[in-house]
Amino acid sequence: MDKQKLRWNGWGLCDAPDTLGDKAEGIWEWLGAYTGLGMLPHTPACALEDIVMPPVRLVPEQLQALEEILPGRVKTDRFERAYHARGRSYHDMLHLRRGRLEHAPDAVVYPQIIEEIEAVVRYADRNAVALVPYGGGSSVVGGVTPLLREGQEAVVTVDMALMNRILKIDKHTMTARIEAGIYGPELERLLQSEGVTLGHYPQSFEYSTLGGWIASRGAGHQSNKYGKAEDWLVSARIVTPQGIWNTEEFPKSAAGPQLRDMTPGSEGVFGIIADARVHIHEVPEKKEYRAYLFNDFDSGVKATRLLLQHEVQTAMVRLSDANETFFYSVMHGGAEVAENGPVGFCLMLVGFEGAGDEVAHQRSRAEAILSQCGGADMGGSMGQLWLTTRFDTPYLRDPMLDHGLGVDTVETATDWNRLPELHENVNTVLEEALRRHNPNPGAKGLAMAHVSHSYRNGASLYFTFVFPRTPGASIEQWLAIKQEVSDAIVANGGTISHHHGTGTDHLPWMAREKGPIGYGMLKALKTTLDPQGTMNPGKLIES
Amino acid sequence: MDKQKLRWNGWGLCDAPDTLGDKAEGIWEWLGAYTGLGMLPHTPACALEDIVMPPVRLVPEQLQALEEILPGRVKTDRFERAYHARGRSYHDMLHLRRGRLEHAPDAVVYPQIIEEIEAVVRYADRNAVALVPYGGGSSVVGGVTPLLREGQEAVVTVDMALMNRILKIDKHTMTARIEAGIYGPELERLLQSEGVTLGHYPQSFEYSTLGGWIASRGAGHQSNKYGKAEDWLVSARIVTPQGIWNTEEFPKSAAGPQLRDMTPGSEGVFGIIADARVHIHEVPEKKEYRAYLFNDFDSGVKATRLLLQHEVQTAMVRLSDANETFFYSVMHGGAEVAENGPVGFCLMLVGFEGAGDEVAHQRSRAEAILSQCGGADMGGSMGQLWLTTRFDTPYLRDPMLDHGLGVDTVETATDWNRLPELHENVNTVLEEALRRHNPNPGAKGLAMAHVSHSYRNGASLYFTFVFPRTPGASIEQWLAIKQEVSDAIVANGGTISHHHGTGTDHLPWMAREKGPIGYGMLKALKTTLDPQGTMNPGKLIES
Repeated sequence: MDKQKLRWNGWGLCDAPDTLGDKAEGIWEWLGAYTGLGMLPHTPACALEDIVMPPVRLVPEQLQALEEILPGRVKTDRFERAYHARGRSYHDMLHLRRGRLEHAPDAVVYPQIIEEIEAVVRYADRNAVALVPYGGGSSVVGGVTPLLREGQEAVVTVDMALMNRILKIDKHTMTARIEAGIYGPELERLLQSEGVTLGHYPQSFEYSTLGGWIASRGAGHQSNKYGKAEDWLVSARIVTPQGIWNTEEFPKSAAGPQLRDMTPGSEGVFGIIADARVHIHEVPEKKEYRAYLFNDFDSGVKATRLLLQHEVQTAMVRLSDANETFFYSVMHGGAEVAENGPVGFCLMLVGFEGAGDEVAHQRSRAEAILSQCGGADMGGSMGQLWLTTRFDTPYLRDPMLDHGLGVDTVETATDWNRLPELHENVNTVLEEALRRHNPNPGAKGLAMAHVSHSYRNGASLYFTFVFPRTPGASIEQWLAIKQEVSDAIVANGGTISHHHGTGTDHLPWMAREKGPIGYGMLKALKTTLDPQGTMNPGKLIES
Repeated sequence: MDKQKLRWNGWGLCDAPDTLGDKAEGIWEWLGAYTGLGMLPHTPACALEDIVMPPVRLVPEQLQALEEILPGRVKTDRFERAYHARGRSYHDMLHLRRGRLEHAPDAVVYPQIIEEIEAVVRYADRNAVALVPYGGGSSVVGGVTPLLREGQEAVVTVDMALMNRILKIDKHTMTARIEAGIYGPELERLLQSEGVTLGHYPQSFEYSTLGGWIASRGAGHQSNKYGKAEDWLVSARIVTPQGIWNTEEFPKSAAGPQLRDMTPGSEGVFGIIADARVHIHEVPEKKEYRAYLFNDFDSGVKATRLLLQHEVQTAMVRLSDANETFFYSVMHGGAEVAENGPVGFCLMLVGFEGAGDEVAHQRSRAEAILSQCGGADMGGSMGQLWLTTRFDTPYLRDPMLDHGLGVDTVETATDWNRLPELHENVNTVLEEALRRHNPNPGAKGLAMAHVSHSYRNGASLYFTFVFPRTPGASIEQWLAIKQEVSDAIVANGGTISHHHGTGTDHLPWMAREKGPIGYGMLKALKTTLDPQGTMNPGKLIES
């Protein structure tokens, strides 16, 4: 991954086209009118050379010691430090774009083998240097912000990008052993050249890594078939300050609790994931993605629930609410579609992957349920379009930020009983918060949501919101909105995150989510594996 | 569950018929000849009134304090103490039958509500009394042996049998909240009267409880469809010395590692499971169990692997090796079937459960694979017979013990690469150990195995062995055999247990299985939740 070709303060390739502006004519005018801003302002980001960063706090002897461990792979230049100063959340973008970085790593190091990780961890642990494990840096919860804890004087980011090999593909057990720093596209290219796939396609797929997916307990679009990180992870090697932790790797066991389950979601606070063994699948013979339209959200939710509870084998069920269905139709159809506003219809995309006859069989089972719930078949074109353009979506943010707008997402999961109310209540809180924390009286935001991952007992809900930014106080504006919407999620029985993770941003809600006993267990594990607090301070748990 | 009707030193109902003797004519003569014993001796168990037990070590004030917490539900009589002195392993039977119990609980208490569990745990923790959580007591790994740790002077067994209510059945989320002390048959009777099922049918089903299934990380016969305990558990309330631990209960989350996963397999060392929420399914419209015959074990293993990797939806795949196929044909066909000895054929039972058309569809998918691997369709009668008589099998042991024989089982799981070699090597070690640790030169045992739970990357293997007991030294004989076969399992890459658990009997292999880091994590959790070591001492981890 050549980072020089990537935006250090935005999403993806520097020379990516302006997907939003290109997409739909009159879209800026419409957004300006809808949000009450009228003409959207021009709000460019600060250039790299103008960014103010704290000085490097590592002394020459320390840099020399690191250089001896990782010859030629200790970086302290402006680009590397700024690139690794933040993840890729809206909150991060505000920091990266404003020209002043409070936090930046004092150095970025690139290990190539597990022994180098061990040596770096040992050095850091003995010298009060904090370490931040770094995959693709696409965290949207502050998971890679280089923070210090008391007594530490410097922080080094460990970028895993050079540990990007597939160590073994074993078709007999349908597992592969893979180094943690491999990016999504390279991982799938190598696997698929052997006829197999991991099938993990998160929204961040192009710029995130295997290790990051595990550490954040991520989910790919097709999690209904391929599982979340905790489902497809077989075992891992994690370099902790106490040594290398090899997790159990039996298919199943009853020899005590499975400690491997403490790896997904560990966010680098126990150690650095060096490599992992994962379940793989044959590359599906057929992928079929189709659209269905429901009269209302509740009917679509019911259909989703029944698909899962009747064990119809889908790869994906993605149900947009009326607002999101409306917004996407404007995005695709242009401003003239917008005239009548949201009309209530809810779009569902359903994906099937597998052998041809099995895809046909499962589609027919699915359609019996969908039709029973009032879903109208819209054919295959919208599903196919989504499949081929889905990784463009994150590119929508940068131009919005350039036009005085803010855009962020929050996500959760809850059981089917609570889901409708959570959807309604969080939406209300969100719209109210977007109105209240707004620079211009009368201006408003757009809030929309979809169900993207579903289970027998419940589903995830993913909210997206677009709103006019408060000039000069956009971070404060975001913090206020984030607080209110997160409180609403938790108050309505949702988890603080279904697949983004905790990082710094969800930390305030963790103690309540885990409860006093569970939180104590998590802290005990931290203290056991990382007694000095070397690993990724300030994330996941208070310490 | 009226324990007075159950064998305190054997399996199941006192008045159960002699299934083995009734089953096949000439079976005792054949077993005597096969094992080289000739005429089998008569070796009855010691009667309850002749059993020597340690005196009750709780002083009257302590018993009074317990009585105040659980009025009328503190038992110290001979029957209750002997009944709860041991689990139901072969090793336990040797202790129970010989007339001398080294360990027995000083009292057995029966809580009815979670507050009573809390009060007992608090009392025990403050008064250096050890507690043994007890479900059905069917542990085969020493999981309920009442042991003390240093500084403790008495041990109380907490029998959960009165906490046997279904608190809620929720068909919208397809989950049920159930008290942990409910026995299998009552649980399924209540669920099925509402049209739903948990589908967890371990071999111990009739005399084991929900809490025990979770604590031991058990598996039911139909785990391919309904999952192991760790799969169907949604959440639990566990009374620890630090208070009640409510585990997470979101469908999925990314808010840190899921601490709930530390419940299955916890074996009471963190606390007492009071109740749990579990996934339920509609009672299947159709259950179809069919038999297939393979020329050799490897072909059957390959077929099992392909069924799993091609995601054919089975409820059960159970593949016996040639020895077990032979043994069961003798059991069902009588001694005359035995004349030619094992002939190599391997029987596979495959179960399908679900809607009628889906069962037909999956059966047709399965049969394409089975036939491609050389499996011959033997029709539905053997499968149906197995389904209706499967809970009789544990009754075979008591009459064998009465006839001078020993019978035990060991089980494991490993990946597909290691499975054939593990099967062969463990079988060899087992046969050799049965020969060597044998009272009569020339006598030998029978060893047989089956695959009963299978996964994309591997499967379980379950070994059963029958052998002549060493009079007067049968415990020493068992310890020697157990040591050798367990070492062989671990040396061949198997877990020390796939679904029986650890208890006391597998403790020596735990540190190696978890590795130094993992074992340290487990101990840290124990110390955090139970700093005094009150909960089930001597099980799962050294302390």
